[in-house]
Amino acid sequence: MDKFRLGPQTLVYPMPAFLVGANIDDKPNFMAVAWGGIANGEPPMVSVAIRRQRYTLKGIKQNWTFSVNIPSVDMVNETDYCGMVSGSKVNKVEACNFTVFYGQLGNAPLIEQCPINLECKVVQILELGSHSLVVGQIEETHISEDCLTDGKPDVNKVKPFIYTAQPARHYQAFGEVIAKAFSIGREIEAKKSN
Amino acid sequence: MDKFRLGPQTLVYPMPAFLVGANIDDKPNFMAVAWGGIANGEPPMVSVAIRRQRYTLKGIKQNWTFSVNIPSVDMVNETDYCGMVSGSKVNKVEACNFTVFYGQLGNAPLIEQCPINLECKVVQILELGSHSLVVGQIEETHISEDCLTDGKPDVNKVKPFIYTAQPARHYQAFGEVIAKAFSIGREIEAKKSN
Repeated sequence: MDKFRLGPQTLVYPMPAFLVGANIDDKPNFMAVAWGGIANGEPPMVSVAIRRQRYTLKGIKQNWTFSVNIPSVDMVNETDYCGMVSGSKVNKVEACNFTVFYGQLGNAPLIEQCPINLECKVVQILELGSHSLVVGQIEETHISEDCLTDGKPDVNKVKPFIYTAQPARHYQAFGEVIAKAFSIGREIEAKKSN
Repeated sequence: MDKFRLGPQTLVYPMPAFLVGANIDDKPNFMAVAWGGIANGEPPMVSVAIRRQRYTLKGIKQNWTFSVNIPSVDMVNETDYCGMVSGSKVNKVEACNFTVFYGQLGNAPLIEQCPINLECKVVQILELGSHSLVVGQIEETHISEDCLTDGKPDVNKVKPFIYTAQPARHYQAFGEVIAKAFSIGREIEAKKSN
């Protein structure tokens, strides 16, 4: 197979479409973040990469708290909007008709319409270059009750989506289940022992 | 909408299914990693969370280099296998029939069968608890030539997949494009100015 070199690129699949929230001067604001993921298991932590001049980052540094909200496919317009405009110029909460609530941290704003909301306390901020990598400990997880099945989060009810940057900037739904994890790999093991 | 509190959880969608590689005692090994994402834009960086006792982490610390390989849906068995067994016990490269190649770093092993390969140099390792968060600068990006369209990475040819942990541990394909990013959000703006 021939390989082609593209130079250093931020090329991974999938990327999330998080709505990261913070209070700035006591007012809630949200931005779209595609660069982030889980950073630790015990205790649970998440990381988000935020361009250094972003308005939301100012709020994160004011309170040392933030939120990660997972939007569903029916919130793709709002998510995109939150990635296009700055909270320093417009009131995104108002424009998107977000209902904001607060949980146990008290100052990490959460979007009621998003099926999943993580409340985070900043553990560390790494200044890596163009972006600050904000690592936060997940202090509480909220889920909309209608997204639970037998008390467990159900991806088919959450209906999250993916951000894809290449070849074009798109949002994509989740597709079909292709295999059971920690299971299908046994076929390799079986083949090996033949 | 009623919200339910789940306690602190590593609950985000989507999570990736990366195959992270390193040389340990000069031999290549790969593990599956669902906790990671892009960490910086300029220069490009990626982060991966690895449980501290993992064999691959030993190699990353030996060489201060690693790779992130993006498998395609037809490699789901191999990916799962690499997440189920330890390289300290089995030769995963042999079991999975991986063809390993090296790029410009010389000691970050890359899987030829994976459509995308990132070569990374460690920038920082954060000891966060159960996991080490390894932040690496992406020094080179390789892509299989048959995954390019007009010289650009084509997600429909790469055929990456998602790892889903809840309600069950599954691998899922990418679904349909639901919207154009940096575009669909304008509808909110238009509504606002009415």
